Parts: sequence; C-alpha cells; structure tokens
Amino acid sequence: MSSDARQLLDPLMGGSAVAHVFSDRARLQGMLDFEAALARAEAQTGVIPQGAVAAIAGCCEADRFDLPSLASASVAQGNLAIPMVRQLTDLVAVADADAARYVHWGATSQDAIDTGIVLQFRDALGVLEADLARLSDALAKLATDHKLTPCVGRTWLQHALPITFGLKAAGWLDGVERHRARLADLRPRLLVLQFGGAAGTLAALGGKGLAVAEALAADLRLGLPAMPWHTERGTFAEFASFLGALTGTLGKLARDVSLMMQTEVGEAFEAGAPGRGGSSTMPHKRNPIASAAVLAAAVRAPGLVATVLAGMVQEHERALGGWQAEWAVLPELAVLAAGALRHMAETMAGLEVDTARMRRNLDATQGLIMAEAVQMALGVKLGRLVAHDRVEAACHRAVKERRHLREVLREDKTIMAQLSAPDLDRLFDPLNYLGVAAALVDRVLAARR
Amino acid sequence: MSSDARQLLDPLMGGSAVAHVFSDRARLQGMLDFEAALARAEAQTGVIPQGAVAAIAGCCEADRFDLPSLASASVAQGNLAIPMVRQLTDLVAVADADAARYVHWGATSQDAIDTGIVLQFRDALGVLEADLARLSDALAKLATDHKLTPCVGRTWLQHALPITFGLKAAGWLDGVERHRARLADLRPRLLVLQFGGAAGTLAALGGKGLAVAEALAADLRLGLPAMPWHTERGTFAEFASFLGALTGTLGKLARDVSLMMQTEVGEAFEAGAPGRGGSSTMPHKRNPIASAAVLAAAVRAPGLVATVLAGMVQEHERALGGWQAEWAVLPELAVLAAGALRHMAETMAGLEVDTARMRRNLDATQGLIMAEAVQMALGVKLGRLVAHDRVEAACHRAVKERRHLREVLREDKTIMAQLSAPDLDRLFDPLNYLGVAAALVDRVLAARR
Amino acid sequence: MSSDARQLLDPLMGGSAVAHVFSDRARLQGMLDFEAALARAEAQTGVIPQGAVAAIAGCCEADRFDLPSLASASVAQGNLAIPMVRQLTDLVAVADADAARYVHWGATSQDAIDTGIVLQFRDALGVLEADLARLSDALAKLATDHKLTPCVGRTWLQHALPITFGLKAAGWLDGVERHRARLADLRPRLLVLQFGGAAGTLAALGGKGLAVAEALAADLRLGLPAMPWHTERGTFAEFASFLGALTGTLGKLARDVSLMMQTEVGEAFEAGAPGRGGSSTMPHKRNPIASAAVLAAAVRAPGLVATVLAGMVQEHERALGGWQAEWAVLPELAVLAAGALRHMAETMAGLEVDTARMRRNLDATQGLIMAEAVQMALGVKLGRLVAHDRVEAACHRAVKERRHLREVLREDKTIMAQLSAPDLDRLFDPLNYLGVAAALVDRVLAARR
Amino acid sequence: MSSDARQLLDPLMGGSAVAHVFSDRARLQGMLDFEAALARAEAQTGVIPQGAVAAIAGCCEADRFDLPSLASASVAQGNLAIPMVRQLTDLVAVADADAARYVHWGATSQDAIDTGIVLQFRDALGVLEADLARLSDALAKLATDHKLTPCVGRTWLQHALPITFGLKAAGWLDGVERHRARLADLRPRLLVLQFGGAAGTLAALGGKGLAVAEALAADLRLGLPAMPWHTERGTFAEFASFLGALTGTLGKLARDVSLMMQTEVGEAFEAGAPGRGGSSTMPHKRNPIASAAVLAAAVRAPGLVATVLAGMVQEHERALGGWQAEWAVLPELAVLAAGALRHMAETMAGLEVDTARMRRNLDATQGLIMAEAVQMALGVKLGRLVAHDRVEAACHRAVKERRHLREVLREDKTIMAQLSAPDLDRLFDPLNYLGVAAALVDRVLAARR
Repeated sequence: MSSDARQLLDPLMGGSAVAHVFSDRARLQGMLDFEAALARAEAQTGVIPQGAVAAIAGCCEADRFDLPSLASASVAQGNLAIPMVRQLTDLVAVADADAARYVHWGATSQDAIDTGIVLQFRDALGVLEADLARLSDALAKLATDHKLTPCVGRTWLQHALPITFGLKAAGWLDGVERHRARLADLRPRLLVLQFGGAAGTLAALGGKGLAVAEALAADLRLGLPAMPWHTERGTFAEFASFLGALTGTLGKLARDVSLMMQTEVGEAFEAGAPGRGGSSTMPHKRNPIASAAVLAAAVRAPGLVATVLAGMVQEHERALGGWQAEWAVLPELAVLAAGALRHMAETMAGLEVDTARMRRNLDATQGLIMAEAVQMALGVKLGRLVAHDRVEAACHRAVKERRHLREVLREDKTIMAQLSAPDLDRLFDPLNYLGVAAALVDRVLAARR
Repeated sequence: MSSDARQLLDPLMGGSAVAHVFSDRARLQGMLDFEAALARAEAQTGVIPQGAVAAIAGCCEADRFDLPSLASASVAQGNLAIPMVRQLTDLVAVADADAARYVHWGATSQDAIDTGIVLQFRDALGVLEADLARLSDALAKLATDHKLTPCVGRTWLQHALPITFGLKAAGWLDGVERHRARLADLRPRLLVLQFGGAAGTLAALGGKGLAVAEALAADLRLGLPAMPWHTERGTFAEFASFLGALTGTLGKLARDVSLMMQTEVGEAFEAGAPGRGGSSTMPHKRNPIASAAVLAAAVRAPGLVATVLAGMVQEHERALGGWQAEWAVLPELAVLAAGALRHMAETMAGLEVDTARMRRNLDATQGLIMAEAVQMALGVKLGRLVAHDRVEAACHRAVKERRHLREVLREDKTIMAQLSAPDLDRLFDPLNYLGVAAALVDRVLAARR
Repeated sequence: MSSDARQLLDPLMGGSAVAHVFSDRARLQGMLDFEAALARAEAQTGVIPQGAVAAIAGCCEADRFDLPSLASASVAQGNLAIPMVRQLTDLVAVADADAARYVHWGATSQDAIDTGIVLQFRDALGVLEADLARLSDALAKLATDHKLTPCVGRTWLQHALPITFGLKAAGWLDGVERHRARLADLRPRLLVLQFGGAAGTLAALGGKGLAVAEALAADLRLGLPAMPWHTERGTFAEFASFLGALTGTLGKLARDVSLMMQTEVGEAFEAGAPGRGGSSTMPHKRNPIASAAVLAAAVRAPGLVATVLAGMVQEHERALGGWQAEWAVLPELAVLAAGALRHMAETMAGLEVDTARMRRNLDATQGLIMAEAVQMALGVKLGRLVAHDRVEAACHRAVKERRHLREVLREDKTIMAQLSAPDLDRLFDPLNYLGVAAALVDRVLAARR
Repeated sequence: MSSDARQLLDPLMGGSAVAHVFSDRARLQGMLDFEAALARAEAQTGVIPQGAVAAIAGCCEADRFDLPSLASASVAQGNLAIPMVRQLTDLVAVADADAARYVHWGATSQDAIDTGIVLQFRDALGVLEADLARLSDALAKLATDHKLTPCVGRTWLQHALPITFGLKAAGWLDGVERHRARLADLRPRLLVLQFGGAAGTLAALGGKGLAVAEALAADLRLGLPAMPWHTERGTFAEFASFLGALTGTLGKLARDVSLMMQTEVGEAFEAGAPGRGGSSTMPHKRNPIASAAVLAAAVRAPGLVATVLAGMVQEHERALGGWQAEWAVLPELAVLAAGALRHMAETMAGLEVDTARMRRNLDATQGLIMAEAVQMALGVKLGRLVAHDRVEAACHRAVKERRHLREVLREDKTIMAQLSAPDLDRLFDPLNYLGVAAALVDRVLAARR
C-alpha cells in the first residue's frame, strides 16, 4: 500500500525491481535484523545473558511494529532508531521483563540505522546483479545477431559513416560490462558492519567490544571494517556514484533507442504492448515509454549523487545534517537506478529492429555517406590528392543536382578509367567499408564476464 | 497512511507543513479539479453540451478513485493522466453515458498534470507565506529584544570583534525578507494555466480554443499565459530555485544555531521538550534536532534544483525525460523547503538565549577581542603607528603570560599617561565598540514587509 | 593573454560576450574601484583627510599591479583582497606616505571582494540584456515570418499533429521574454553595496559608518542594502539560479535546432560559414557547432547553480568555505550563460529554414498525422463513434498496405457519401488543422517587452 | 603565465599540485603525444611510410604552437583537435611536404582529445598517489602519537563521551586508505587508449585498424580497450566520482580541524606561518586558511561530479553537448581534488595539537561526560536500575547547582558504600572509559597499504 502510494507520486519508480527492498517495512526490518543479531552476539560473548536472546530476537519482526507512530516519533526525536528501540523494548518487556533491559545494549542509533541500510543494499545488489546479467545477455544477443547488419553511424546527430548495428550494441554492452566489474570491486567495501556505540569506542561493552563486533559481523554475514565509520562515508559515496554512473549509461542507451524510434528514423523500437505507448487519435505514434522513464532517471540521478557527496562533510564523531541527508536519498537513487536497469533490460530483450529501414537510411544522402570510402580506394590508384579533388567535385555536383553520387562519378572519365562499374558499385556497398567493426564486436563478446 | 509511510522513509519531511499538499490524494485531486473546470469552461463556450457538466464535475473527487490501480497503470502508460482519464470516463459513464464522451475533451495529458501541480503549488504558497511571516516575526522579536545584547562576532569560526545578538538576528531576518519579496515576484508567473492540447494548438477545439482557455483560467483562478508552455519550464525552474535558495538561507540559520549550541559555546538553544534531543546516559547532551533536519534539507535541496534545471532541455512540443523528471522532484523539494521553514520558524520562536554566556564568551580571549577598539582610541591620542605598536606588543605579552590584555596595558606608562583606569575599562566594554549595529537593526526592522 | 589561455582549456567559453568582464584584470579592477570610491566617500564624510584621496584613487588601476605575485600571495593568505591591499598600500606610499595609511580604512576583505564582483555583475547584466534583446528580436522575426508555415509538431520524439514553425518560435520567444522579466526583478536586489568592516558593525568608523556607506553606494551607483550581507547569500543564489534557468531555456532551443538539423529531418540549420561545421571526407555533414556549445553549457550550469546554493550555509559573521566556493563558480556560470546566449542569438538570427522540407516531413506518415483532423470533421456528420471507428479502420489498412490514408478513405463509401473529394483534400491540408496557432503567435508577440 | 591567471580567478586552485598537469600547454602536449605515437604505430604496421615519422613526431611539441590562434579557432570549429591538426600539418609540411599528408591519418578529433586527456590523467594519478601516501603517513603518525591522548568525542556538535585523539586520526586515516584502494581499482580502467576513427570502425585503415590500435596503445603505455568508447563515458564518470568522494573525505577532515580550531575549542591548529591566517588588529585570530580552501573544494566538487554524470547521456557514435561538457569540468575537478589533498597533507603533517586543552575540555561539563561510565560501573554493584536512577538524580543536581558531578556523588551514601574515593576518582578518569579505542587504532594502522 505504501509502495503503491509512492508509485503514484513517482511513476518513474514503478518499474523498479528493488522498490520492495526499500519499502518502509524493509527499512524497519533491516534495523531489527541488526538488533536480533546484536543480542545473539552479545550473549555469545557473555555480555548479556543467553536467556535474553529468545525474547529479543523473537520480537524483531517488522510486522509487529506500529509504523505510523514510529514515523511521527522519529520526527521529534531526530532519527528512526530511537523510537524503534523504544517499541522493541516494550514488546520484549511483555515477553520477558528482564530481557528488555538488554535491548540495543551498548549500541548507538547510527549502528542500527547504518547496518540496517547495508543489509538492504545487499538485497539490492542481488537484484542489480541479476538485471545487469539480463541486460548483458540481451545486448550480447543484439551484438551477435547484428554483427553484420549495416546501419548509419551518426556523430553530432549527423550521418557520418556506415557502421553495423551489432557494433552499436557492442558499445552498449561494453559499458554495461565495465559496470559489472565496478560492482564486484565495491561489493566487499560496501557490505560491512557499522558498530561503534555512542562515540565509536564501544566503551559500554568494556573490553569485549571487538569480540562482540566480530560475532555480530559473522552473524549478519557482513565484513568487519577496521573501525566504525560513522562520519567517514566514502563507501556510501562510492555506491551512490556507481548507481549514478550506471544510470548515466542506461540513459545513453535510452537516448539512442528513442532517437532511433523517431518517426523520421524508424530503425529500432521498444516492443509494443496493448495499451502501451499508442494513441487512438494519433495512430502513427509509438511512444518510447521505457526510454522516457530511463531518461528521466538519468536526469535525476546526478543531483542525488551530488547530494551524497555533499553530505560527506560530517562533523566529529557523529554528524549534523550530512548523515541525515542520506536516509531518503540513497534509497531513492537505488530505486531509480534499479528501475532504469529493469526497464532497459526489458527494452533491449524485446527490441524490434528494422534492418531494412537501417539499409534505406544509409541511402538517404544518395551515396554521400560513402564518399570517404570511394576517395580512399581511388587514392591508391590516382594518388591521394587527385582522388580527393575529383571526389569532392563530384559531391558538390551531386548535392547541387540532387543526384546520387555514384551516378555523378560514373560521368567522370578519369575515375571510370580506373574502375569498372561493378567496382564502383562495390565501393558504394556499406558492407565493404566497415573497417574492423566485426572484430571489435568479437572482442567485446569475448571480454564478457 | 501513505504520508506516514513517507515519513518513515524520510523523517526529515515529517515536520513539513505542506506534506499533505503533495500527498497522492492531492496530486490526483489537482488533476481532477482541472477536468471539472474544463468541462464547465467547454460547456460555457458551447464546445460540449451543458448537460454533460454535472456528471463529469460530480465524479471529479479523488476519494472515488482507486489509487493502487492508477499507480500501476501509470507505469505502463508513461503518465498518471492517461489512467486517470480512463477511470474518470468509466465513473462518468455510470452516471451519464453521453457525458462520458466529453471527458478531457480536447486536452492532453500534460495539460491536466501541469495545471494540477500548479494548483498544488498555490496551496503550498499559502503555507510558505504564512510560515515566512511567522519566521520573520520571530526574528524581528529576537532582533528587537537583543538589539543591545553584546555577543562575539565570529569570522572563519574565530572570534573577531563584538557584535550584538540583535544584529545577528537582523542579518537572518534581512535574508528572510528578501525571500518574501522574491516569492511575491514569482507568484504571478507561477500560478498560470497549462492548456494546449496534443501539440499546443488546441486544434481539436476548432476556433474556440482561446475562448475555452480564458474560461478555464478564470474558473481555476489562474493566470492565462500567452501560450502553452509544455516544454518551456522556466517558471518551474524559477520556483525550484526559490525553494532551493530559501532552504540555503534556512540552512545558514540552522548552522549558526547549532554552532551556538555547541557544548563549548552555549549561547543559544533550541527549545527543549520532553523526549526531544536528550540522552539518558549522556545527561549533558542537548541535540539540535531541528537544526539537523534543516541542515539535511540544505544538503539535499541543491541537487534537486540542479535536477529541475537539467530537465529544462526538453524536446520539441512535448518532452522525453526532462518533464517526467519533474514529477517527483518538485514536490520533494517543496516539502523539504516547507519542512525546513516550519522547523526554523518554531526554533526561532522558541530560541533560548543565554545572554550571560554570550557576555562570558566575549571575555574568553582575555581582552584580545577588544584590541582593535583600544588601538583605534589610542590612535587619536598617540598617533596611529605608535598606538598600533604598543597595543601589538601588549597583545603578545598578554598571550605569552596568559594574562588579560587590560592588565598588561595598565603597566604601559605611555598609554596610562593618556588614559585613566576608568577610560581603559570603558574601552574594554564591548558595548562601546559596536559601531552602527543598533542602527542597522533598525534599518532591517523598518524594511520589513 | 589570460583569456586566450582559458579558451584553450574551455573552448565552450570562447563565444562568450562577457569573458572580458570576468578576466583577471577585471576582477582586480572591480576591487580597486571599491577602494577608490571608499577613499572618496571617507574623505567626503570626514573620516580620512581629503588630501589622501588623490594618491589612493590614482593608484587604483589594475594595470599597475603585478598579477602573478597577487595570485601566489592570495593562496597563502586565503583571499585576493589581502595582497591587493598590500600592493595598493605600497603603490600609494610611493606617491604619498601619509595617504598610504588610509588605504582600505575600516573595510574588510569581503567588502572589497563582494562589491568588486557586484560591479562585474553590473557589466555582465548590460551584455546579457543586450543579447537577450537580440535573441528576442531574432525569435520574433521567425515567429512572424513563419506564423503560417506548417510544420510537424512532435511529442515524445514522435510526429504528433501539425503546428506552424512560427508557433514553435513563439514558444521559444515566450520563454526568453519571461527571463527578461526575471532579470528586471532581480536587478535592484543584485546591484547593491557590500560594506560592513571586520564583523559587520563598521565599528572602526566610529559613528560615521552609515554616512560612509551611503556616500560609498552613491559613488559606485549601487543600492544601499539595509545591512551588510556577508553570510546571507540569497541574492547571489538568485542570480546564479537565473543564469542556470536561462541556460536551460537556451539548451532547449539548441536541442530543438540540433534535432531539426538531423540528416533525416533537415528542417532548419545553423548558418553555414567557411571552415565551420563541415568535414572534407564526409561532405554531407553539417555539424550544429553552436548548438553543441549551448547544450554543453546546459549540462554544466545545473551543477554550478547547485554549488552556489550549497555554499549558502555560511557560518556566523563570515564564512569558512561556502563563500570561497563562489569566487570561481559565479564567473564561470555567468560566462557560460552569456556565451550560450550569444551563440543562440547568432544562431537564431541566421537560422536557415527549409519550409519545403517541413512540408514534406508532414507527409512522411502518408496522411496519418491528419487522422485526428479527419475524425473530428466526420464526427459532425456521422456521429463521433462511427467517425472514430471508420477512421481507425482506415488507418490500420493504410499502415498495413503502406498506402496514403487519404487513398484508403476514398474507398470508404460511407465516408465519401458525406464528403466530396475536394472536401477530403482540404481535411488533409495541415493548414486547416492548426487550431489557434496563429492567435497564440500574436499573443506572444504582443506581450514582448 | 596562464596558470598564474587562473590562480587569480580561482585562488582555491593555487595550492594544487596538479595545476601544471592541466595547463593549456599540457593539454596540447597530450594531444600531440597521441599524434606522434599514431605516426610511429602506423609506420610500424605499414599504414604510412616510415619516412613520414621523423617529420611528424619532430613537430609534436607544444611550444611550437600558437596557443591564442588555436584557442580562437577551436571556438569556431567546435573542438581543439581540428585546428591543432591543421597547425601540425602546416608545421610538418615545412619540414617534409609528403609527410604532412599522413598527419592524424585515420583518426578522429575525439581520438586525440580523449587519449590526450587520459595521458594527463596518468600524470595526475602519480601526483595524487604520492600525496595520498603523504597524507596517510601524517595521519598514521597522529594516530600513533595520540593513541592514548584523551579527547572529547562529539556527536551532533555536542560533547558525548571521551575518545582518544588517536582514534579520531585513525578514522580519518581509514577513509583515506579506502580511497587508495579505490584508486588502485580504477587505474587500469581509466588509463586506456581511445582510437576509433570517424565512426568507431577504423574504416579508413582498411584491415589494419586493430594492428595500429595495438601498436599505438603499446607506444603510449596505455591499455587497449575492447573497442572505442567515444560515447560510453563510464570510466570518466568513475574517475570523476572518485575525485568527488576524495574531496568529500578531505572536507570532513577540514571540517573537523576548523571546528577544533574554534576559539572556544582550541584543540588543534593548522601550522602557523608568517603572513598566514593572522590579523594585525585582531591578534587572537588564527584563521584556518587551508581548511577553508579544502571546504570550498568540497562545496564545489559535488556539482562537478553531477555534471560529468549528466553528460553521460550521449548520442549515437559521437555526442552533442555531453562530451564537450567534460573538457573543462574534468580538469577543474582534478585540480580541485588534488589541491585539497595537498592542502590537507600539509595541514596534517604540521598539525599543532594542544593535548592539555583537550584534557581541559573533557572537564568542561564538570564530570557529566563521565556519567555513563559511572553508571556502568555502579550497575555491576547496585543493579542496573538503581545505578541508573541514582546517577541520573546526581546529574540533575550537579547541573542545577553548577557543581562537579563527582562532588555530588560523593554525598550519596548508597554509592559511597560501594566505592572508595579513589575508586570514584578512577571512574572520572577518561582514560578508564575508552573501550577498544586503542585496539581500533592498531587495526587501522595494521590495514595500511
């Protein structure tokens, strides 16, 4: 229900595969998982009685909590952990009054909040990795299937030279693969425990602070960092930046798809579906719905990354403002990135490619797109300068007379003395001027994880 | 319930006075208000039958709609207006099948979405203006009450010269007043109708487009712009920037309050309240809860403003990504700014000022903070260079010997030949070196709206 | 020399009409203008001897200063004013040793730095206003000339309905005019004096602080604010936001131009020039050079605005970090915005419009773009539902058989019983389905400043 | 000269160790290094005559170029490479007319620009790594020297519990060490060749494209990526994000230093130097000059990172705006980050620590900061609830009567029945309530690279 509500205010997040990972309930459960594991770890190390564990751990279920009252209390008290610990203590007290005294023992609010969100991040990573793999598979298939499909290469939004659509897809894939490598690099830095107590010394645990920390990290299957990181947020900044850059790459894919879907270009299309992207009074329309959502995410992500970076300037042992700014921003960013990833994985898996239109578009400039190819070939026979001058003159005439460059060239006797008509036709075949496109596709496919 | 849910994920918004203005229900109602007014305006101008109005307008109540199904449909269809119009049409058809044909007549999705959010902005402006007035009142009272309360002026986080606490409050007030002027400037630009139909020409309304637009704007009490502004978002950018700059100013106030609340400074405090900002095991703590929320808002607002600005680069007649990015960001920004404003209005209205501590802090450097005052006064009698040299020497000695500067100066016969002991005492009274502080306070108070 | 150097590192700024306003020399001169005016104002009010003015004011010429040594000293000393005052004092001392004692009397570094940059802003406003007028003129001419030029209206990068190119230009114009209004609103808030001395009290001037401030503001022809604004930066934030939003609007214009310049669209072009935007080996290319520069500026501006907003959270009476961040960012933003404005004013003044291509592109969907027009007209005769069903069926057939919609409709006897062939032809003329486009253009033109 | 000019406009960059890496001259030389290596690689693979290499490579020296004319030409032509290639060709032609024909053979502008900046990044990495090592050394020394120096731990800008200054330094160090790890991860992704020709296929090189690419990468000692990455900018985004996060961490250090330098705190100071941070008329001031510069960099970096991320949405094979936005922004960000790093490395190496003041500040709350310690110790003897109640009551009395908590407790017979006076004194020694602070310091030191 709450997640539906968020979709209404933010339909861009609707397609997100990780929205549930960052629901209200999941945020609370992450903190409760910390509290349960803390009780176990402290009992194991003799800090609290073993008998207190069952009551505490048994109450650490989000569904037993009153979310609205948590919400309003968190405003007055400045964070969500204070009222959560209070409600948890009350719940435990009903079951075991003595155990209630050991709830949250020796920990500080930030220990629960930070570790809780790290546990949410772990769930999010699972979804992101799976969808990155799906997107990678879809792009690899496009790159493979269209390794030899000629297509206009465009620079500055202008026709430049022929490429293959497979090369374009390989370029997309290459970027996605690098993000997978980055995610593998940051994973062990991100998935670590936060545990330091009120000022980071674990003083309330006497000499047992480290032992508890070790047991706690092991229980939660998180890494144990060298020390608490309450005000050193480099790791969250790294994750935010990853999400932002991933969204940027997805935005590039969406930009390309939407440009190819233009009425005047018509080379590739998001898969159609009933009630999706059409218009009854404008029957020619086919709106790039998924691309729009991804592009909107790409507009939003940079500002959110900047927020996380700006929030890093945190005071002393625990901060005033910078930390609090992370609470809503990191989940929002993760949901946007994951939503954009899911949209793009589906888009690329279902992409409808019009190879005939790609071929026709190559002819849109009446052969001019092949001028460089002709000039390079003639250069070998006529010398580079002569070749350049004659081709350039022919181009000017072709444009002026609105004729195909090949027809104009055919009237140039100097050129035709060197080339047969079939030779000339071959030069105007884009497939013969693709350089190492196919080899590059192979290299990208070979480098996949 | 949904708004509670948002508070849990985003406790910083919890204090926001405009959260309800941007609830799911309010967003839907804004669009429905557009649809009802559209039916009235089109009937009035003879575009649709008068008989259709009652059925359409009667169904334009958010509570009759199914929010979760709207939410999920909006993802597939790319915006919220398409499924809203569908549900509305279905509701109307039950009451009057013929009337159902005239729902949303001649309008486009963006007309309903943009006008709907403008109506929400109008409600938000009311709250913002009222809270700006409250904050202004609170600051004016502080400036008036403490016009002559001496206090350390600090630059680079170092003691500089004496000021009055009233001057500091007047500086806060001055900034707030300028924001009130800006809001008055932008109001008429912001509160305007959006109405253009599918491509901005109102072609589906034949020759009656302008007449309908005029009637519609009048019905909604909005301005009628020269033409639709589907992809010219300067006005929303202006409002977003206003909200961002307001939050920045509030962040400056919160930074000052939190610095004055430091254990080592202790000059001013957020009003205490049971269960607010305290700690049972750290009895000396008094956390600046409101300041933290405001500072967090100030960390977040710049990225959101940047997002709105980045989204302005919109394509042709209706955009792909830039517009969609606004949907969640503008409400988030408004709620953050309004929440920060409410927090700071309450903080300043209840600010506890420790004037005795302010006085003691002036003495913390044992008179060094008055060195400039002494030097200026001696300059008249001894000549500027001699005065400078003798005071400088005395300062060095005072620091070295950890004595009060006044005591050291008393041992300087050259100086004491010019000054009586009471003269010297007077020079060390910060009240005698406040320049035009009081006059500046008066100027700011006189300039209030 | 230094400005050439900056162009090399930042060619995007090369077209900026205000680069010289923000050169090193101009920054220094702005501060020196403050110092000269300060001496005059203090002599006029009896604070310093009248005889000191000539020597001080005479030395306030940037060309007499050693920029490299200022630059390196400013790093060690934390701002540019400290070494500037030192060099100025040394220069004055050569001319008049006594006058040298009165340099910068009673002022603080920030007074000189802030007032200096305000003076630069005033120069920049002049250039911005002139170029806004030029752009407005160019757009008004396009709107007028093409008021009746039919053109494809595009939404979601898809053909939607016919519009006129004049309406598109009017939409651009409308946004530009609003920016002119905003600039007029902010001008008096921006162009004000900064003058407060070390802690904002003007204590070093005894009781004459306000009199000096008034004389100083009058001398510099700046407004006198209610009090100093050393750490209340709302006005600079407002100006930065204006520049950011202006750049966003310009980015929208550039996006539209570059999309229309696409090889497949070909409707409008940046004016060609020798050695500009062409490629010898790709003779069909015509790169949108100016649009690229403007779009790059639109990518950069939001982050700079966010920086200024983030820097507003300033400490106490003078700040640590937030203020210093403005020094390079505000000029960079102003230069980018002014450069983008100049580029776009020139682009629009020289825009080459291919009205024949616009007309051909309207036919690209073989009549489908007129389906709504046909359906609306038939609805009057056949009833809305029948009209909708028959036109929809015809559209499907036209797409399937790759025929023009008009030809398919001609085979529908029900329809042709209502319409003559010339009637049908008229319905397919985009000029007959432009709604109130011409009236909207007139409204925008009438609303120009 | 040009770098001096930039310092004047941007003194924050003045301390940057990499400013020279990003000077105009260095930017040009980076591109020329690409051109020289290209000639060698193409000769080696038989694409161009071996005889052309000497003339081309010999001319690839930045000092032979006319920077101002390059600058102005780059504005008209849209990038720096086009006029650079033209000047280079002219220079080569003087030496060897035939060789001039082979300049830039088969490459595109972006190949030279991107590879050139990668070469600059390599130089920058060297400086960054060295300064990270210096900063790490300085922090390790502080952590080691002050492992047992008691100090107030502060949360929410309030005194919380005792920590050691060594633990604080270890926290700083821990963050810096993680950045070193990130830099090692991204290095091989960043330092790669860009080489694709006009549309990324290397078509102009016939079948030899890959062979040339391999030779070229080897010559420049850069990695060879799977394919060109003209519009997939994830790697630059990753580097920008690293620089942004590093600056954020440095900002946290600067924030802490400047807070500790406050007149009222006085625990640590930037090393003094003649003419640095002082004020002749305010002898008590000691401005945190370096911290201000670092904090200003931390305000600016997030917006620059956001710009790079926003620029990632690039069109097709080569982009319009997004790529161009990188040109000035990436160097600016690198210079800011490197400058902040250098400032902070020097600050920490010279940090003056006042351990006596740290000890005195622990007493500022008259024992309240030790309340938790006393309560924990008494809990063992009296039971937790009794201990809590009695300590709480004593705290209230101590605050009310402005007495030291220890004195109040001494009057509580229940407590003193359990504790001797020396026991009580021991509980009030912060050294006895430091938890695992020392062990955490050891862990951080042990984890250093």
